Amino acid sequence: MKDMKKSAKRIIAVLLFVTAFATGAGAQTVSSPNGNVVVKFNIANGGVPTYEVSYKGKAVVKPSRLGLELAKDKHASKGLDETDLLDGFEIKNVENSAFDETWTPVWGETKTIRNHYNEMLVTLEQRMEKPEYQGNGNDKGLALVAQVRTVKIRFRVYDDGIGFRYEFPQQQELNYFLIKEERTEFAMAGDHKAWWLPGDYDTQEQETQECRLSEIRNRMKEAVNWDNSSVAVFSDTGVQTSLQMKTDDGLYINIHEAACLDYATMHLELVDGQTRQLSTQLKGGSNAYTPNPKEARYKLPEPLTFVSHLTPDATGLKGCMQTPCETPWRTVMVSDDARDMLSSNLILNLNEPCKIEDTSWIHPTKYCGVWWEMIVGKSSWNYTDEFPSIKLDNIDWQTVKPNGRHGANNEKVRRYIDFAAKNGLDEVLVEGWNVGWEDWANMWKRDVFDFVTPYPDFDIKALNDYAHSKGVKLLMHHETSSSTQNYERHIKEAFELMNKYGYDAVKTGYVGDIIPRGDHHYSQSMNNHYLYVIKEAAKHHVMVNSHEATRPTGICRTYPNLVGGESARGTEYEAFGGSRPDHTCILPFTRLQGGPMDYTPGIFVTRLSEWSDNPSWARITLAGSLALYLTMYSPLQMAADLPENYEKFDDAFQFIRDVACDWDESIYLEAEPADYITVARKAKGTDNWFVGGKCDENGHKTTLKLDFLDKGRTYDCTIYADGKDAHYEKNPQSYQITKRKVKKGDTLKLVEAPGGGFAVSLIAR
Amino acid sequence: MKDMKKSAKRIIAVLLFVTAFATGAGAQTVSSPNGNVVVKFNIANGGVPTYEVSYKGKAVVKPSRLGLELAKDKHASKGLDETDLLDGFEIKNVENSAFDETWTPVWGETKTIRNHYNEMLVTLEQRMEKPEYQGNGNDKGLALVAQVRTVKIRFRVYDDGIGFRYEFPQQQELNYFLIKEERTEFAMAGDHKAWWLPGDYDTQEQETQECRLSEIRNRMKEAVNWDNSSVAVFSDTGVQTSLQMKTDDGLYINIHEAACLDYATMHLELVDGQTRQLSTQLKGGSNAYTPNPKEARYKLPEPLTFVSHLTPDATGLKGCMQTPCETPWRTVMVSDDARDMLSSNLILNLNEPCKIEDTSWIHPTKYCGVWWEMIVGKSSWNYTDEFPSIKLDNIDWQTVKPNGRHGANNEKVRRYIDFAAKNGLDEVLVEGWNVGWEDWANMWKRDVFDFVTPYPDFDIKALNDYAHSKGVKLLMHHETSSSTQNYERHIKEAFELMNKYGYDAVKTGYVGDIIPRGDHHYSQSMNNHYLYVIKEAAKHHVMVNSHEATRPTGICRTYPNLVGGESARGTEYEAFGGSRPDHTCILPFTRLQGGPMDYTPGIFVTRLSEWSDNPSWARITLAGSLALYLTMYSPLQMAADLPENYEKFDDAFQFIRDVACDWDESIYLEAEPADYITVARKAKGTDNWFVGGKCDENGHKTTLKLDFLDKGRTYDCTIYADGKDAHYEKNPQSYQITKRKVKKGDTLKLVEAPGGGFAVSLIAR
Repeated sequence: MKDMKKSAKRIIAVLLFVTAFATGAGAQTVSSPNGNVVVKFNIANGGVPTYEVSYKGKAVVKPSRLGLELAKDKHASKGLDETDLLDGFEIKNVENSAFDETWTPVWGETKTIRNHYNEMLVTLEQRMEKPEYQGNGNDKGLALVAQVRTVKIRFRVYDDGIGFRYEFPQQQELNYFLIKEERTEFAMAGDHKAWWLPGDYDTQEQETQECRLSEIRNRMKEAVNWDNSSVAVFSDTGVQTSLQMKTDDGLYINIHEAACLDYATMHLELVDGQTRQLSTQLKGGSNAYTPNPKEARYKLPEPLTFVSHLTPDATGLKGCMQTPCETPWRTVMVSDDARDMLSSNLILNLNEPCKIEDTSWIHPTKYCGVWWEMIVGKSSWNYTDEFPSIKLDNIDWQTVKPNGRHGANNEKVRRYIDFAAKNGLDEVLVEGWNVGWEDWANMWKRDVFDFVTPYPDFDIKALNDYAHSKGVKLLMHHETSSSTQNYERHIKEAFELMNKYGYDAVKTGYVGDIIPRGDHHYSQSMNNHYLYVIKEAAKHHVMVNSHEATRPTGICRTYPNLVGGESARGTEYEAFGGSRPDHTCILPFTRLQGGPMDYTPGIFVTRLSEWSDNPSWARITLAGSLALYLTMYSPLQMAADLPENYEKFDDAFQFIRDVACDWDESIYLEAEPADYITVARKAKGTDNWFVGGKCDENGHKTTLKLDFLDKGRTYDCTIYADGKDAHYEKNPQSYQITKRKVKKGDTLKLVEAPGGGFAVSLIAR
Repeated sequence: MKDMKKSAKRIIAVLLFVTAFATGAGAQTVSSPNGNVVVKFNIANGGVPTYEVSYKGKAVVKPSRLGLELAKDKHASKGLDETDLLDGFEIKNVENSAFDETWTPVWGETKTIRNHYNEMLVTLEQRMEKPEYQGNGNDKGLALVAQVRTVKIRFRVYDDGIGFRYEFPQQQELNYFLIKEERTEFAMAGDHKAWWLPGDYDTQEQETQECRLSEIRNRMKEAVNWDNSSVAVFSDTGVQTSLQMKTDDGLYINIHEAACLDYATMHLELVDGQTRQLSTQLKGGSNAYTPNPKEARYKLPEPLTFVSHLTPDATGLKGCMQTPCETPWRTVMVSDDARDMLSSNLILNLNEPCKIEDTSWIHPTKYCGVWWEMIVGKSSWNYTDEFPSIKLDNIDWQTVKPNGRHGANNEKVRRYIDFAAKNGLDEVLVEGWNVGWEDWANMWKRDVFDFVTPYPDFDIKALNDYAHSKGVKLLMHHETSSSTQNYERHIKEAFELMNKYGYDAVKTGYVGDIIPRGDHHYSQSMNNHYLYVIKEAAKHHVMVNSHEATRPTGICRTYPNLVGGESARGTEYEAFGGSRPDHTCILPFTRLQGGPMDYTPGIFVTRLSEWSDNPSWARITLAGSLALYLTMYSPLQMAADLPENYEKFDDAFQFIRDVACDWDESIYLEAEPADYITVARKAKGTDNWFVGGKCDENGHKTTLKLDFLDKGRTYDCTIYADGKDAHYEKNPQSYQITKRKVKKGDTLKLVEAPGGGFAVSLIAR
């Protein structure tokens, strides 16, 4: 029984109304079910809505303002309203309620998920005077007419954090509006340590920075990899969400968003001691903060306050809204235990239940692919080097001269299919199968791919038939080159082709600058595009794994065919100079909050120089790379290295063959951002457990108590550990495999090398 | 036999190569077949390409510069080249050739069209030095490397004017480039009289201005109807093409373009005595001219020079190009006889032959429609007034409250079908049939229509069945509200719906601001969109009549399913305050140069106040409105007035019943821009002739010599003339119908009233 049907029934059962009506001023309060998290809402001077959040009595978010700045538009007279939604508000009504539901995800870290919160819905009225022509003929004149606009703010308070959003009921006085900027503030209570990425409109693939909030400004310049041609940073103190922080008194705080659908992705801009008010627009790299237009009543936020900064469209605007509508949820997760950051389902819970009726075609997937060999330069995506550039409607592929390095050829793909079949992998990704790779990126080329025409050396029918005969599927690849207009024009034929040949999953890509020109990867219109693709895919029973798309916000609950995504620095960067060893100990706290990542782990041969002229190397041990299949949760897991590399280490590869990628239970045993993560997971529908531990460059020792096993049963335990002398740089391929029998209550002492980790399989006898 | 097949054969037969090779400097000359039109090409100081045009020895275009200014781009290092294509050129090669072909249009003013020109193809080389890193290690340094880029300029010289274009062969040194501005100059030889529209990125629906070139600047403010919410004028001296001019010594000169496909629509900016060089970008309404970047060598053009000004995209850029490619043809038509401006096929000839193999489904069409009654306010497009706004996926149309004024209802549409069947009209346009009209324009609403869901009172199956049973078709309507992204998402289902129910033509509309936001109606990307729609329509055997799209440039030769368009001030403006009586005596010289217009003539009841509360009135006599079916050539002709209005004047309506809309022969008997036009046309496949005369507010007398009739035959002649006291304002419905028998050589004396005209049918016995 699936999410959608179940929830409809349960909501009725568990909605406990504790409605309170308030009409005057005074703080309105709502606490989490266990009382640890408390939200207080108030109207400050000038009618400015504010909120604050505490955890076990400690301030998490100090009193912070709420509101939206609206844009002037030439069509304002027709219904687009430009009066800001910042102040002049009164509380009209407050409704409190409680909710407790358990739902079943289509795939996930646990078999069921509990959605348990207390809610406070505050209805605000903004009274304003609008000039209007009144009277007739000679008596006609401008009069100020009183108008009332209604905005609601809905708070949901969980034991591990809060979510709130703005809701705009349909009303004549607020029918359409344009967002110049959302002005949601998050005033931090101290100079916390933060793990952050530079706020950027077009890339999320930078290395995470670790420093105190007050140090962000001085770190910004080095934080940006300016070689990345997509870089579009907007401020010296702009950061991305999910933003993980840690306070000096041991609180873990995470700010992100949930259910960002037809709305621009939010960044956070930090107001610090150096922030100056300037009336100009923010420019890349400047230290100017765009002041709130109501300066007189509404001064610069206190230092160490984050202010929301939405991603603009080509015209600089942040949103086009039509009531009834609402913003995404703004989320603040908080705990004094880092493990709660990882086990929290707050963001999934704030998303709508599944909207796909039949989900039987959605399945966890382990795959390999013709991919890493192109990343490292061993073969090419493109088929020919004959022309300076190509035009798809003007080339005869049968007569062009092959470059001899094309990866996606019949022979190679058969080799990968054989490898997948032999090792129980479900699918084989093939990149570079379709024409157009000769000049595909950053050339403002609209008609870059057609998504249906294979290169002459890729026999799409024969290869799919061959794969199916071996129980394997091919995994489709749609690189759009960010020419979204072109993709939307071809998407129906593209999915029809997939249906015809039996593909059931697609990896999409958004490398380069967006076409339509001037738009950004994380704008409202682009977020709508990604959702459009997910919905069209669902119509064709296609699972989506979206690369370079906007960072996820839990919408895989609503559309569980979104089985993966990139939206962060993935394994490919190991071939582009490398990522720090602690990178994978940060991602679960940040990028993974919104949904699974197609991190493409499993690189066994870390020195590319051994078989390629690429000097890059992966900063991970072989055992550490096995741990990622557990610490980086995803229903879609790649065995990313070359088949020949796996064949060299077949005993270690056994773990990748064995590990599940869907779970009935997950227990985070240890966690500290950027240091280490240890997690035990029970494979879906079995009694088998898998445990993974991953650490940073400092190594880690763990005592693994097998308390989670079933009492009285014996398990065949295989331990894939770093060798004694293992080291992510000096000796990454040192590992040892140990087998023993264990039972509940046993203890394993495990040592993770610098940049290393371990993986354990526990098969119930 | 159709255009495409025929031409392939003929080209070989008639291409007479007279190739001449030149390598040095010196003027290169090419003349028209009859020698009247001469083009001279030269390289001016600094290697600047120039051209000049003369007619019978008189200067038409004085020496004028050619070139393109390229944009800097962050991806320049990857192949996008920013070195301007303005100077540093040498002539590498000149090829001269002659061409003479006669082709058969699918529909048109004549049975066949002769394409007869002399051609000069000038190959230019631009030598430049480009900084490049050279050497290795410590020896590595920047060096200037010589590079050569090739640009060709192709001139075609006809007896009635010229066309030329830039061609960019594929080459490593010019692979991709971005156009900041095209810098084609047209230096006028005098202060000509001009009929012009304000240069505008988003509307072409202003009244034509008539003044001397030097007076344009002072007329601009009043020339713009600022109430039109689409207005996006860019300069005090910017005008649109086609631009009709007349010199003091009696030359008629017309500047336009041909075959504008994947390129921005061109405007012309006049450099006059007041033009100042400013380094800022042009802003709406400013008097600043953006100077050429090579100011030192390349000074401000002489006063009375037009400089090309392309329509920008959302980022301000004018074009994204990939070689091999070419610009549209820039056309200069010239004659000392105004009638040659109307009979010229220069623009059609410069377009590619028909690309649609089977054109059997394309047919001339006479239609009426549920349209004028909405325009005048008698009924509504929308079905309900219940909500401030609607969302298509969130409304149950069966339960909403109808407003009682919805035009496209079953009963009304049946009445129009009956009217069409009774009067031999082919199709019935129905606007407002589909959900979404409640809040459709200028609200930045992306998902505004789905193009497939009828309102509950429009039974799409029953109405089409009813129409077909009477030998009539319904004509589809796709208003896009300029949300082109939404239209492209739905276009396949929309055309499939049309195929299902038997529609074979669609009227498209682009009212309001473009989505994606920031783009303009006439940009490269939008021109690509219109072409995409035409091609998708052709795949579904659908004819297109595109309203508010970019002004046409003869592409109906290549895609003859583009049977009509608006792209100018049509009859609807008679209900929006009215158009001047001379308006329809200007359009054939300007808007119609690029292709037929769906002007929607035939308004018999000109005073709307007689049956509506709209105070507007049409400035035309009833006989004049009949003349438009001849003077405004189109294969798609509407009988735009209400059936009940036609029933009141059934004897006059007989002409609309009788008149053809496809022709074997057309003879322009008289013409003067903004004064009068008289034309005789022979109906396709018959021996019948129809003659129409239309004049301005001053009236006109004509002596019609029937020399064009077949010798020895007798014709039943019916004359629909203005009554003696007819006047477009005071007595528009005064007309007289005279019947007589005539033969070749007879003469008809006809008097056109102010704002009037006449129509004559000559049916061979």
